Amino acid sequence: MADENCRVLFLPDNRFVTVARGEILLRAAMDADVHINASCGGSGSCGKCRVLIEEGEVEREPNPKLSEAEAARGYALACQTRVLSDLKVTIPLESRIGDKRIFERAEPTPAHGYLLSAADWEERLPAWELDPPTRKYHLVLPQPSLDDNASDAERIKRGLAVEAGLRDVVIDYPVLQRLPNMIRQSDWDITVTVLDSGEELRAVRIEQGDTTERQSAIAIDVGTTTISAELIDLRTGEVTARASDYNAQVAFGEDVITRIIYAIRGTGLAKLQSVVVGTIWNLIKSLVEQAGIEYCNITHVVIAGNTTMTHLLLGLNPKYIREEPYIPSATFFPWIKCSDIGLRIAAGVYLYALPCVASYVGGDIVAGMLASGIFNTDKLTLYIDIGTNGEMVLGNRDWMLSCSCSAGPAFEGGGVKHGMRATNGAIEQVRIDKIGYEPMIITVGNRKPIGICGSGLIDALSEMFLTGVINEKGKINTDLPTPRVRRREGGAEYVLVWAEDSATRRDIVITEVDIDNLMRAKAAVYAGIEILLSSMDMDVSMIDELLIAGAFGRYLEVDKAVTIGLLPDIGYEKIKFVGNGSLLGAHLSALSREMLNKANEIAHQMTYLELSMNPAFMEHYISALFFPHTDLNAFPSVKEKLEAYRSVQRMAARDKVGEEG
Amino acid sequence: MADENCRVLFLPDNRFVTVARGEILLRAAMDADVHINASCGGSGSCGKCRVLIEEGEVEREPNPKLSEAEAARGYALACQTRVLSDLKVTIPLESRIGDKRIFERAEPTPAHGYLLSAADWEERLPAWELDPPTRKYHLVLPQPSLDDNASDAERIKRGLAVEAGLRDVVIDYPVLQRLPNMIRQSDWDITVTVLDSGEELRAVRIEQGDTTERQSAIAIDVGTTTISAELIDLRTGEVTARASDYNAQVAFGEDVITRIIYAIRGTGLAKLQSVVVGTIWNLIKSLVEQAGIEYCNITHVVIAGNTTMTHLLLGLNPKYIREEPYIPSATFFPWIKCSDIGLRIAAGVYLYALPCVASYVGGDIVAGMLASGIFNTDKLTLYIDIGTNGEMVLGNRDWMLSCSCSAGPAFEGGGVKHGMRATNGAIEQVRIDKIGYEPMIITVGNRKPIGICGSGLIDALSEMFLTGVINEKGKINTDLPTPRVRRREGGAEYVLVWAEDSATRRDIVITEVDIDNLMRAKAAVYAGIEILLSSMDMDVSMIDELLIAGAFGRYLEVDKAVTIGLLPDIGYEKIKFVGNGSLLGAHLSALSREMLNKANEIAHQMTYLELSMNPAFMEHYISALFFPHTDLNAFPSVKEKLEAYRSVQRMAARDKVGEEG
Repeated sequence: MADENCRVLFLPDNRFVTVARGEILLRAAMDADVHINASCGGSGSCGKCRVLIEEGEVEREPNPKLSEAEAARGYALACQTRVLSDLKVTIPLESRIGDKRIFERAEPTPAHGYLLSAADWEERLPAWELDPPTRKYHLVLPQPSLDDNASDAERIKRGLAVEAGLRDVVIDYPVLQRLPNMIRQSDWDITVTVLDSGEELRAVRIEQGDTTERQSAIAIDVGTTTISAELIDLRTGEVTARASDYNAQVAFGEDVITRIIYAIRGTGLAKLQSVVVGTIWNLIKSLVEQAGIEYCNITHVVIAGNTTMTHLLLGLNPKYIREEPYIPSATFFPWIKCSDIGLRIAAGVYLYALPCVASYVGGDIVAGMLASGIFNTDKLTLYIDIGTNGEMVLGNRDWMLSCSCSAGPAFEGGGVKHGMRATNGAIEQVRIDKIGYEPMIITVGNRKPIGICGSGLIDALSEMFLTGVINEKGKINTDLPTPRVRRREGGAEYVLVWAEDSATRRDIVITEVDIDNLMRAKAAVYAGIEILLSSMDMDVSMIDELLIAGAFGRYLEVDKAVTIGLLPDIGYEKIKFVGNGSLLGAHLSALSREMLNKANEIAHQMTYLELSMNPAFMEHYISALFFPHTDLNAFPSVKEKLEAYRSVQRMAARDKVGEEG
Repeated sequence: MADENCRVLFLPDNRFVTVARGEILLRAAMDADVHINASCGGSGSCGKCRVLIEEGEVEREPNPKLSEAEAARGYALACQTRVLSDLKVTIPLESRIGDKRIFERAEPTPAHGYLLSAADWEERLPAWELDPPTRKYHLVLPQPSLDDNASDAERIKRGLAVEAGLRDVVIDYPVLQRLPNMIRQSDWDITVTVLDSGEELRAVRIEQGDTTERQSAIAIDVGTTTISAELIDLRTGEVTARASDYNAQVAFGEDVITRIIYAIRGTGLAKLQSVVVGTIWNLIKSLVEQAGIEYCNITHVVIAGNTTMTHLLLGLNPKYIREEPYIPSATFFPWIKCSDIGLRIAAGVYLYALPCVASYVGGDIVAGMLASGIFNTDKLTLYIDIGTNGEMVLGNRDWMLSCSCSAGPAFEGGGVKHGMRATNGAIEQVRIDKIGYEPMIITVGNRKPIGICGSGLIDALSEMFLTGVINEKGKINTDLPTPRVRRREGGAEYVLVWAEDSATRRDIVITEVDIDNLMRAKAAVYAGIEILLSSMDMDVSMIDELLIAGAFGRYLEVDKAVTIGLLPDIGYEKIKFVGNGSLLGAHLSALSREMLNKANEIAHQMTYLELSMNPAFMEHYISALFFPHTDLNAFPSVKEKLEAYRSVQRMAARDKVGEEG
């Protein structure tokens, strides 16, 4: 039932959209590119998104802004109404110049076909087997006797050789220390967990009886802001629990640079390490509780993080990551005992951190390269992960070229007056009416708006640019006939939410300074893309596929990102969202030695281009300090859209002059 | 001067002996098999060892037992007199039925040719190179730049690959943690210590500048009673300092069994571990101070110990070593960090414990096999290390068969009424006059006698047997015309030292119970030898060489050991003393990867024969409960000696009867 799709027809626009049954009507309208005034972010408090249900079944939340009489006549608040069948909906005139909507950010609104499906993944990766780096072997050993008096350790090694063909297994020292009583209490019926570290086979744990049916691994994406973890049953390869939380290091700085500065002072590194270990421990606790397993079922952990996060987690000095020429302590990391970093899951649990390429292209990107199968395709692929840094990789099975450009914190809401992270109350989607310049907004968690997150900013910029609220230089047109555009000290601004509709009781605005910061950020990313291409004597037209990774990409509306010139205009069908590539790569590496080795190969193979002192990069950057770009011809779809908007606006102006005249 | 030899002629025996200049005259007499009454152990307190210096130069200690007038006439106390030139010495009649002498047990009195020389060693071992398991590599790395931005760790790995051809070096996690500051402070001029663990190459330490000239290893023999250590300069392979001390675990029990019992109770294992680590730490401190090096010059440690000592040092549970079927936790041990056992020498110092073969054939024996080159000879060799356990190995380059027989503590002075360890005041050499049954004794440290140590007991038994004080069953002949033989409750006894001459002011005696215990001990060893031979369908006549190892062997007089039937009667020229085989093997393994691998191969190759339930062993054992053996024909030299003694005694008796008659 829940999977059924419903077709919604919006009138008078006469536009169709297909949405999942149960979808909020306001989001359906946004998908259909139909404007409904909505200024309270979908919280139901402004009552402006009033629509008329002409045909079909809906579920209405009772709301004081809508009387029972109105409801009886077919009215509904779009943000408080769920689609239960095919619908025909009319947007009344008053709702078309107003405000609005939604969710716990669980269901994004990707461009159609934007999200890769499980089938897509399978196609992208070579066939790989469930063959994790730790394996359990159940052994029933012959009891020792005067005639067969091999030591306990040698007996186990012999068992592993005979039963599993494993030679030269090194028995971990703590295992040796526990051996004799344990092995006798279990009457010589034991399960040995063997880690293949790449260099050697190591017996890391010995348990009583047959525990081979109980084996799980943990894959973790250690992000600067968010840490996501999965519990994977190694018998089936299935994810049995998921959890994520903010990286508690956030309290010590929002971005990697402030964390590094904190780390290199006094005991800062130890503090940051213990804090991130604390976050990970809580996630593991949650995974274990969700899945109802024992901690000792876990046999290994694979993490992927950017270079700084990996250093901080492992307690490696990150100081020189931020000093020219930007050198990390290490880019490849040995398997270490979890207990060595204070993560006490169970005895003999080892952790592998996926390798990094350089100070600003880390294990998260390597993991993404693995997960997205770029190493396995002939297609020229561009992989982008946008956050404070825009990390990007261009390549295919034969070569990979990476770079990182400091996009600044704008896309994460930093350096923007009302910017915020994508938490409840953050405006994540924005539409602006091309005639009246009234916005339609959706917030995370369907709350009254507090501020604007990255995807909301891109939406807003794109809409402001197309509707002409700002020009190609990012300057606000203060001559527009709307009170939302106004001059203030320090520059003009556009009011996205009036104080009365905001949770903060203050106007939520986008200023020219904000726009300038965002322009720099998008220009840095775009210049990065261009420099990768030009290094290979290529151009954007040769890109077969553009993959976007990371939480930011999840809520990104591709057409909006292209409109502002953040992404190249290569046709939306070529752009896909890979989701959390870092977690996916850690997941694959936790399941397959072959995939883990592949990740190592990728890190070895990938070339890194340092942009900070690259003069060509500066040129590309300056050319990109326009919406969408100084070379508008490189953005044909944007050019077309702009012309369409201007044409509609000219007609509307003519109509208005006609009416008035 | 000190190395000059002097020839001493003893009259009236008319016997020559060649001794080093400076030798004590009493020991020269013992070497010459000339009897002088000496009952105070060489302390100069009894004054019975009076001799007349007829010709030549001596150095006399002034002594109240010798007046200046006597000295002027040429008299001297043999135990207080040093040989300074060739001498002619007459033993006055009164001194021939009395007491006597010596050193700090530094110079033993080996049978001539008994000690192996350095040249012997070289001949026994295959050519091996100075190629220790840790090596230092001095690297001057190219400084990183924007164009060459490999991580610190990768830069080091690249340096090792380029400069030393080392591939796939794993950088130890603690090294990674210290890298970036250290490497920059040293301006990229560093020395990397790489450990070859057999399974992988591991960078275990990084130092500033070129420290390749400063590299030492430590080899340690961890004995149940004594721990001996050497500091070896790895640039030259030379031993630069030596130290040894009692194993502080002695306070928790004399032998391995009592240690095991202590270890398996409560925190006993941790206690014993920390105690032995404490002893080792003190030795290392002494080595470092003697050689004037820094702790951080030390790059690895190799230890050899019996299986129990190795378990206790590594904190492995020894419980099942003493329970049938006698299974150790492990016989092969991984390289571990010294700090893992609480031995904090310097960062990144690893320790290797040489492998064991079984619960009662340990790393000390494997080390001895290595050092004595048995794995490299065609000669059928028997290797024996006698202590509480008699461990022995029979073999050559093609095969090695080992066993261990519980000799009991008798050879270490345990279970013997006046038995003691070979410390100051212990009687270590004994002669008994075949006519008057008066003893001539030498104590360790030239002190008044306190008791008798193992080598003294063997001497005493041998002398008592040859002179007829005891018969072949170990029973004392109480009919002899000497007050030294007497009956007491519980059996007869022989008085070795009268109360007036002993440090304890009590008679020091050897009882029939003592003799019985010693007989059982020697029978166990001999039965072990026979069972090894018979397992291979061999007999003692086929032994090409008999090697004796261990501190006990150092002071053993081979002919005496053969006389009582402890060692087979195969000709003294075939019997050699290898010294501390355990320490020598650890030493070789610390210097050469090839030798270390060879030790591992030896442990793998060696077969272990468990005697405890072997019925053939019991038969051999019972046959050996005689002096020298029920089959006297198996001991032709003893038979001959016995006949010579009896003949002298018969003549003396006849003379006496003649005189009296």
